[in-house]
Amino acid sequence: MQLTPKVKEILSWYESDNPGTKANLARILMQGKLGGTGRVVILPVDQGFEHGPARSFAPNPAGYDPRYMFELALEAGLNAYAAPLGMIEAAAASYAGCIPTILKVNSSNSLSTTKDQAVTATVQDALRLGCSAIGFTIYPGSEYQFEMMEELRELAAEAKAVGLAVVVWSYPRGPMLDKVGETALDICAYAAHMAALIGAHIIKVKPPTAAISLDAAKKTYEKSPVADDAAARFRHVVDACFGGRRLVVFSGGEAKGTEDILKEVRAIHAGGGNGSIMGRNAFQRPRAEAVNLLNAIIDIYKAPVG
Amino acid sequence: MQLTPKVKEILSWYESDNPGTKANLARILMQGKLGGTGRVVILPVDQGFEHGPARSFAPNPAGYDPRYMFELALEAGLNAYAAPLGMIEAAAASYAGCIPTILKVNSSNSLSTTKDQAVTATVQDALRLGCSAIGFTIYPGSEYQFEMMEELRELAAEAKAVGLAVVVWSYPRGPMLDKVGETALDICAYAAHMAALIGAHIIKVKPPTAAISLDAAKKTYEKSPVADDAAARFRHVVDACFGGRRLVVFSGGEAKGTEDILKEVRAIHAGGGNGSIMGRNAFQRPRAEAVNLLNAIIDIYKAPVG
Amino acid sequence: MQLTPKVKEILSWYESDNPGTKANLARILMQGKLGGTGRVVILPVDQGFEHGPARSFAPNPAGYDPRYMFELALEAGLNAYAAPLGMIEAAAASYAGCIPTILKVNSSNSLSTTKDQAVTATVQDALRLGCSAIGFTIYPGSEYQFEMMEELRELAAEAKAVGLAVVVWSYPRGPMLDKVGETALDICAYAAHMAALIGAHIIKVKPPTAAISLDAAKKTYEKSPVADDAAARFRHVVDACFGGRRLVVFSGGEAKGTEDILKEVRAIHAGGGNGSIMGRNAFQRPRAEAVNLLNAIIDIYKAPVG
Amino acid sequence: MQLTPKVKEILSWYESDNPGTKANLARILMQGKLGGTGRVVILPVDQGFEHGPARSFAPNPAGYDPRYMFELALEAGLNAYAAPLGMIEAAAASYAGCIPTILKVNSSNSLSTTKDQAVTATVQDALRLGCSAIGFTIYPGSEYQFEMMEELRELAAEAKAVGLAVVVWSYPRGPMLDKVGETALDICAYAAHMAALIGAHIIKVKPPTAAISLDAAKKTYEKSPVADDAAARFRHVVDACFGGRRLVVFSGGEAKGTEDILKEVRAIHAGGGNGSIMGRNAFQRPRAEAVNLLNAIIDIYKAPVG
Amino acid sequence: MQLTPKVKEILSWYESDNPGTKANLARILMQGKLGGTGRVVILPVDQGFEHGPARSFAPNPAGYDPRYMFELALEAGLNAYAAPLGMIEAAAASYAGCIPTILKVNSSNSLSTTKDQAVTATVQDALRLGCSAIGFTIYPGSEYQFEMMEELRELAAEAKAVGLAVVVWSYPRGPMLDKVGETALDICAYAAHMAALIGAHIIKVKPPTAAISLDAAKKTYEKSPVADDAAARFRHVVDACFGGRRLVVFSGGEAKGTEDILKEVRAIHAGGGNGSIMGRNAFQRPRAEAVNLLNAIIDIYKAPVG
Repeated sequence: MQLTPKVKEILSWYESDNPGTKANLARILMQGKLGGTGRVVILPVDQGFEHGPARSFAPNPAGYDPRYMFELALEAGLNAYAAPLGMIEAAAASYAGCIPTILKVNSSNSLSTTKDQAVTATVQDALRLGCSAIGFTIYPGSEYQFEMMEELRELAAEAKAVGLAVVVWSYPRGPMLDKVGETALDICAYAAHMAALIGAHIIKVKPPTAAISLDAAKKTYEKSPVADDAAARFRHVVDACFGGRRLVVFSGGEAKGTEDILKEVRAIHAGGGNGSIMGRNAFQRPRAEAVNLLNAIIDIYKAPVG
Repeated sequence: MQLTPKVKEILSWYESDNPGTKANLARILMQGKLGGTGRVVILPVDQGFEHGPARSFAPNPAGYDPRYMFELALEAGLNAYAAPLGMIEAAAASYAGCIPTILKVNSSNSLSTTKDQAVTATVQDALRLGCSAIGFTIYPGSEYQFEMMEELRELAAEAKAVGLAVVVWSYPRGPMLDKVGETALDICAYAAHMAALIGAHIIKVKPPTAAISLDAAKKTYEKSPVADDAAARFRHVVDACFGGRRLVVFSGGEAKGTEDILKEVRAIHAGGGNGSIMGRNAFQRPRAEAVNLLNAIIDIYKAPVG
Repeated sequence: MQLTPKVKEILSWYESDNPGTKANLARILMQGKLGGTGRVVILPVDQGFEHGPARSFAPNPAGYDPRYMFELALEAGLNAYAAPLGMIEAAAASYAGCIPTILKVNSSNSLSTTKDQAVTATVQDALRLGCSAIGFTIYPGSEYQFEMMEELRELAAEAKAVGLAVVVWSYPRGPMLDKVGETALDICAYAAHMAALIGAHIIKVKPPTAAISLDAAKKTYEKSPVADDAAARFRHVVDACFGGRRLVVFSGGEAKGTEDILKEVRAIHAGGGNGSIMGRNAFQRPRAEAVNLLNAIIDIYKAPVG
Repeated sequence: MQLTPKVKEILSWYESDNPGTKANLARILMQGKLGGTGRVVILPVDQGFEHGPARSFAPNPAGYDPRYMFELALEAGLNAYAAPLGMIEAAAASYAGCIPTILKVNSSNSLSTTKDQAVTATVQDALRLGCSAIGFTIYPGSEYQFEMMEELRELAAEAKAVGLAVVVWSYPRGPMLDKVGETALDICAYAAHMAALIGAHIIKVKPPTAAISLDAAKKTYEKSPVADDAAARFRHVVDACFGGRRLVVFSGGEAKGTEDILKEVRAIHAGGGNGSIMGRNAFQRPRAEAVNLLNAIIDIYKAPVG
Repeated sequence: MQLTPKVKEILSWYESDNPGTKANLARILMQGKLGGTGRVVILPVDQGFEHGPARSFAPNPAGYDPRYMFELALEAGLNAYAAPLGMIEAAAASYAGCIPTILKVNSSNSLSTTKDQAVTATVQDALRLGCSAIGFTIYPGSEYQFEMMEELRELAAEAKAVGLAVVVWSYPRGPMLDKVGETALDICAYAAHMAALIGAHIIKVKPPTAAISLDAAKKTYEKSPVADDAAARFRHVVDACFGGRRLVVFSGGEAKGTEDILKEVRAIHAGGGNGSIMGRNAFQRPRAEAVNLLNAIIDIYKAPVG
C-alpha cells in the first residue's frame, strides 16, 4: 500500500514514534472510504458500559451482537472500530485484518457515584487481539484526574514501546466545572492540549460551545477572541493540539437529528478537525439508515475545505 | 471425548481464547448429566465465607467436611464445583480429575460494613490445584467497584494466559441501588453486560424482577418493553451478554421450596439461560433430597425448549 | 523419625500441600512431650509488641532476654515457639535445630488507634532463620480486614511454595462487634472457618463464650443448638474448620489462675481442640512454676479423651 | 569539547555521580551563549499544562507549535529547553543534538483542586527522546508532599543510574503556608535545601521576598539576619544548597516588564545564583523581542560579578 | 584490624546476621576514639530537613557545606556520621573510607501537618555511596505507624541481605500521646523494644523522663518500679532491647548547655546505654568548641562504669 502525501505528512508529526506505531496510525488513516485523506470516521461502542445494554442496543437490537459492529463499520467504510475488551474478544478473530480496532482499556458506568474509571484491559490484550491502538478516557478536573493521567502514562508508554497507537478521550469534569463548563471553549481546548502533552496520537474531545469557563482564562479570550462560529471553535481546539500537528476528532454526543449532525460535521471539516467518532448516532439507527448517514458524513470530509 | 455440536458452537463464541481455556470450558460443558447440552448446573460453596459456617452447614452438618461437596456434585451429576481456596485444598487431591473445579478467588463476609471483597486466592493456586476456572465477584455500583473490576481484569488476564476460564459473579449494590434495585431487570442486564465486557466466559447473575431501577433507563424500557414474564426477563439478560453469545447462569439465592425452584429453572430454560448455580438449596438439604432436586433441575434443562 | 499414625492422619488432611510444608507440620507435631499425639502446646511471645516490654516481661525479667524463651520452651517440652522477627533473630542461631519456630510476620501495638497491623517480617526472613512456619493475625470484621486477608493470601502463597506452614491468629473485631461479640460462639466459629478458607494449616482462636452475636445467625443456633458447656463450644469451633480436618488451637488470653487454665484446657481436650498456645500464663511465671504449669497442661492433652 | 575550569569546578561538586550524569550536566553548562560560564538560562514550557493553551500561547500564537520553542531557545543561545512529554515528542527528532532537553515528568493543571501532580512521563521516555535531564516539581508543605518526594526519589534514582541529570522545581505550598509564606525567605531557602537533600543536581525556586514565615524560624533570622536586599536573599538561598555547591536557578514567574526582569536578574547574578529559568516572559513576547530580552539577560550573567 | 573482646561480644548478639552486616557494625564500633569500647558517638545531620537550613546552620555557617560535617566527625574522633542522601552524595567520594556513614533514608520536615515521613533514599543509594548502614525513623503511635514500619521492614530486609546495618530512630507520637507521653519512660522503652522487634541493629531513642503515659502500663510500673534516677531509666530502656543485647544510643535533643549534656551522658553511661547521637549540640557550636564537647563526652564513655 502506497501512503498518500497527506498521510505521510501526518505521520511526520509523530517523529518520535517507532515504525510500529507509525504503521498502526497509517492503517487507521488509510482504511475505508476516507483512506488517505487525513480525515477519519471512527465507530466507538462503549455505551453498553457507560449507559447499560438496553439504553444502547434496544433501539436497534441487532447491536447486541458484537459482530454487527464490525459489519456496520466495514459496510460504511469507516477507519476504525473502538470497543471494550469483551466486545473485541467476541469477534476479533472473525474480522482479523478487516478493519483497525481500538481497544478501549478503561471504562466507567452509570452506577458510579465517582468521577473515576476502571482500567479493564491491557496493552497485552490489545496485542493478542490484533488491535492497532488502545483507547483511554481521562477526566481532567476530576478528583481522580492525576491517577487517571498516571494510568494513561503507564499504558501509553507500554503501548508505544510495542508499536501501538494511543487514542485519548479527554472529557473534563469535576468540582471546578458545572455542566456548561464541561464543554466550554477554553475547557475543551485545555482538555485537548493536556491529552497532547501526555503523548496521545489521536485526541477525542466534545464539540466546544462558545462559553468560557475559567475566570483566569477570560482575560486571554477577551484579548485574543475566537470568532463566534462553530468552525472557528473547532479550529481553536485543533490549534491547541500543537498547532494542528496532532489528529483531533470530535464526538457526536447524544443521538440527534441527521441535519444537526451534518451541520456539526461541516463545521469540524471547515475548522480543520480530523474527523468524527460517532457511536449512538450510528449503531442505534437501522443499518441502512446508519450507513446512509455515515456516508453523508464521509462525503463532507472528502470535499476540499471551502 | 467427542464434543457435541452444541458445545462446539458455544466454544466458537470464544474465538479469541487460547486452546487451553477452550479445553477448560469444554471440560465444564461436557461434564455430568448435562454434558454436551450447552446447559450447566454448578455447585457453589462460598456461603461459609459469606454467611458463616453454622448458617451454611448446621442444617446439614455433613457439609462441614469439604469432601461432602465433591461427593454431592459427583453423585448429582453436576458440571462443576466452585469454592474458596481452603475448601478446594482440603479435597482437591482426593478428587483430582473427577469434576471440574472453579476456584473462588475473592470473598466477602457478614462482618464487613463495606461493599468490598478480599482477594483470597490466586491464579497460581488454581493451577496447582488443578482447577478449570477462577471465579470472581464484582459489585457493580459499589464504591469499590472500580478496584474490584481492576482486580478482575488482572486475574482474568492472568487466567486466560494460562488456559483457565473466568467465571464472574456480577452482583450490583451500592449507593445508587436500594434492595429492589439490586435485582431490577435493567440492573441485572447491565451487571451481566459489564461482566461480558470485562471478558468473563461464564456470567452469573441473580434472577431479575420486573422492576426498572435507573431513571435514565425507564424511557428505553417503555419504548422497547420486555414482556412481563420471567422467561422474557431471563431472555433479556441473556441478550445483554453479546446477543446470547456468552454462557449465562442464574443463582437460586436463599433456600426456598422445591416447587419455587423448579418454576424458576423452567423460566431460565425457556428464556435461553445456560443453567443454574445452586448452593444452599442443594447442600443444606439431606443428601438424597438434594440429589433428587438437582436431578429434577437437570431434567428440565435436558428437555428441548418448549 | 517415624511419624505416628495420628500424625500421618493429620498430614493426610493437608493433601494439597507440598512435602516441604508437610515436613514442617510434622516437625511441629513430633516435637516435645506431646510429639506424635496430634496435640500441641505452643509458646507465643509477641506481647512485647502488643502490650509493651514492661507489661510483658517485668513480672519475670528473665524474659527480656530472647534466649530465655527458647530455654523455657525446650525445658517444658513444647511443640513450637512463635515470635516477631527481632526475637527470633536474637537467638535462632544458638538454638538452630532445637525446636520449631514460627515467625510472627505481622504485629499491632497498644499505641495504635486503628484495628490494623503492620507486616514486619517476610517469608524470606522465615527461610533464612530456619523457621517451620509463618504466623499471621487477621482481624475479621475490622475496617482493614480485607487488606489483612490479602496480605495473608500473599504471604501464605509464598510460604506454601517454599515448604513452610501457615499459622493464622483469627481475632474478630470491628464496627459490628462489641466486646461480647468478639468472643461469641458464632463469631469464634466464623473467624476460625475464614482462616481455614484462606488456607491456614494451623488456626488459633480465642475460647468462645456461649453468646451468639450476629442477629442473622441466631435462628440457626436456635434450630441447631450447641450444648451449653465449654467442651461443646470448642467442638463447634473445631467442626467449623472443615469438620475437624484442620489443626485448631486456643489461646489462654490474659494471665489467670492455674486452676482456671487447667479447666479450660480440659474442655479444649474434651472438645477435640488440638491444643493451646500459651504466652503470658507461661513466661510471666517464675521459670519452675511455668514449667510445672505447662507440664500439667501437657498431661491433660496426653490423656485419652474421656 | 574542552570544559572550562568553571564547569570542571561545578562538576566536581557532583562527586558521587557517574560520568553519564556529569556529561549531561556538562552538556547543559557548555551550551549556548553562556556555555562555560557556570551560568545558565533555561526555557521551560509547561505552562500549557499548568494554565491551559490559550493563556500560554494566544499572546504569541507561534508558540502553539512545539518547533517554535526549539527555534527560540536556539536563536537566543539558551542552555536547555524543558517541557512535558508531548511537546518534546513533537520535535525531538527534528532538533536531535541541537540543544539539551529536560523532560518535565510531572504536571499539575488549573482544573485541580488539590496540591498534587500527576507523573506523566518516565525516565525511559527521557532516554528514548535523547533528553539530558528529567525535571520534577515538588510542593513542600502540601498534604501530598511525601508522596511527591517519594516519586522524585524513585525517578531520580532511576535517572542517575542511567546517566541523566535531575532538575527539581521546589515550590512550597499547603496548609501551613499562605500566599506570603510561599515565597518567604525562610521558606524558599528551606524548599531549595530539601531539593538538594533529595539529591537534585539543579534546583529551581522562586525569588524570595524579605518575609519570614515560620514562627520557629524567626528567632534564627533575628540572630543571624539576612541583609534586606534582593542579592543577599538570593545568596542566602544559594548558601542553603550545600554552601553554594549545587546549581540553583530562579524562575521569573508571571509575565512582567523588561526592566523588572533585568533588575531581578542582576540581583540573582550578584547573589551568586546560577541563572534563570524563563518561560512566559520569553515565549509570550514576539520572537525578536524575546530574543532581545534573553540576550540582555545573558549579557548580565556574562559580566564578572561586581 | 583486630576486634576487641567487647566488640566481638556485641557482634555475637547479632547471631542471625551475615558477615557483611557484622563487618559494617564492626566498622562503626572500631572507629574513632571510642573504637573497641562498645560505646559510640554518632554525628547525625538531618536537621536541615527537619527544621530547615537556617535554623540548623546559621548559628555556625560553616555547616552549610557538607564537607564540614565529615571534617568535624573525623577531628572529634566519632564513630559514624549520619545524613540524608544529598549531604552524603556531596562529599562521600572525598571522604571515602575515612569514617563509616549512615544514610538516613526517610525524612520529615517542619512544613508537614501529618506525622509521616517520605522515603527519600534507597539501599542501592547506600551501597553506591559506600555507607555502612541505613537509618530510618519510625513514629510509633502515629496514624502512619504501620506504613512506616512496613517501609522499614522492606528496607531493613534489603539492607541486611546486602550486608548493611540498620539504625532505627524510634520517636513515639500520635493521637494517644501528648508531649509528656512522647518521652515517658514506658513509651521510650516500648518504642525501643518495637525497633528491636522489627530487627534494628542500633536503636536510637530520646532520653526518658520519669512519667508513665499508658494507663494500661501503670499497674506494671507500680508493681515493678524503676528507680527515680536517670541512669535507672536508661538501664530500663536498654533492658527493653532484648535484655541489653542490642546497641542503644540516645539523642541529645535541642541545643543546650554543656553541663546538662555531660550530666545526661554520665547517666547514659551509668545506665549501660551504648552511647550518644549528637547533632545540633555538636555542629551548631564553633568547631573548636564542638570538638572539645565531643571529646568530653568521649572521655565519659571511655571511663569504666562507676
